Amino acid sequence: MNFCSACGSVVSLRVPTGDDRHRHICDYCDTVHYQNPCIITGCLPVYGDRILLCKRAIAPRRGYWTLPAGFMENGETTAEGAVRECREEANARLINPELYAMIDIPHINQVYLFFRGELAVPEFSPGSESLAVDLFHEADIPWGEIAFPSVHKALKYFFQDRKAGKFRVRTDIVRRG
Amino acid sequence: MNFCSACGSVVSLRVPTGDDRHRHICDYCDTVHYQNPCIITGCLPVYGDRILLCKRAIAPRRGYWTLPAGFMENGETTAEGAVRECREEANARLINPELYAMIDIPHINQVYLFFRGELAVPEFSPGSESLAVDLFHEADIPWGEIAFPSVHKALKYFFQDRKAGKFRVRTDIVRRG
Repeated sequence: MNFCSACGSVVSLRVPTGDDRHRHICDYCDTVHYQNPCIITGCLPVYGDRILLCKRAIAPRRGYWTLPAGFMENGETTAEGAVRECREEANARLINPELYAMIDIPHINQVYLFFRGELAVPEFSPGSESLAVDLFHEADIPWGEIAFPSVHKALKYFFQDRKAGKFRVRTDIVRRG
Repeated sequence: MNFCSACGSVVSLRVPTGDDRHRHICDYCDTVHYQNPCIITGCLPVYGDRILLCKRAIAPRRGYWTLPAGFMENGETTAEGAVRECREEANARLINPELYAMIDIPHINQVYLFFRGELAVPEFSPGSESLAVDLFHEADIPWGEIAFPSVHKALKYFFQDRKAGKFRVRTDIVRRG
């Protein structure tokens, strides 16, 4: 950040009065420009005993498999965002989303929120950000080709809880590798 | 947002190629400035059968009671943020934080994450954003003077679950009043 988005003047990195962190502050109008973590909202779409994964068509991790997920948008709820991502990336309709996993990634300022849900019908196809979409049995999950540690963790918890016959909200942290 | 924080030129509200929402885009360098929801991380600090509340010293809702909570910062986890807010607002040490409630407030682009936790010792005092801090029995909660609907919901769930003898992660939505 170099310039003030309110007035266009130069900003500098200073600690505001009463604060204890450096923030970008406008040298002219004194607006403090806070930068905060982003929410990635996503889902585990289940159909029978299979789970839907998307093969990424975009960077980062193009060609690797992921759960539908993306930046939460203003004006929506976390669950609405998860349903939207499933529609956008897999042209699939997620129903009954329930919060399942919250995964912090502090070194990149992200918090993943994954919702478990069902596919109303086994209909799906690649959205513009996907090369392929498919339903996988646990035995067929391409563990070596999962795009992100957060997705890997969410899937592991899912199969562990399904085996135990009881799902509970999981929390975890991905630290710098 | 009027100016590009990268180059200082004027931005305009347009739909980027491949997107379906209006974003602030720089007319000169084409940087897209996304705006996304913020996380408010907070806690329910418990000591014995009492819970800690803070009386707000700042706007909005000055003079009303709240749970320690505030904007999550870059570089921390959600739980670390909850512990930090408890320290900053109540000079109290929260231990064993566990995710307890996620409350969406889509019309103001916020997601509250409340952690249940314990006070290591019953030591607390008002931080700079608090007028007073105290421990309350359920019967003494000032329900008519609670600062925010999200806090009201979290407290109601807490006492309901405590009575039932079983806590589970709660999710809810605050809609425009």
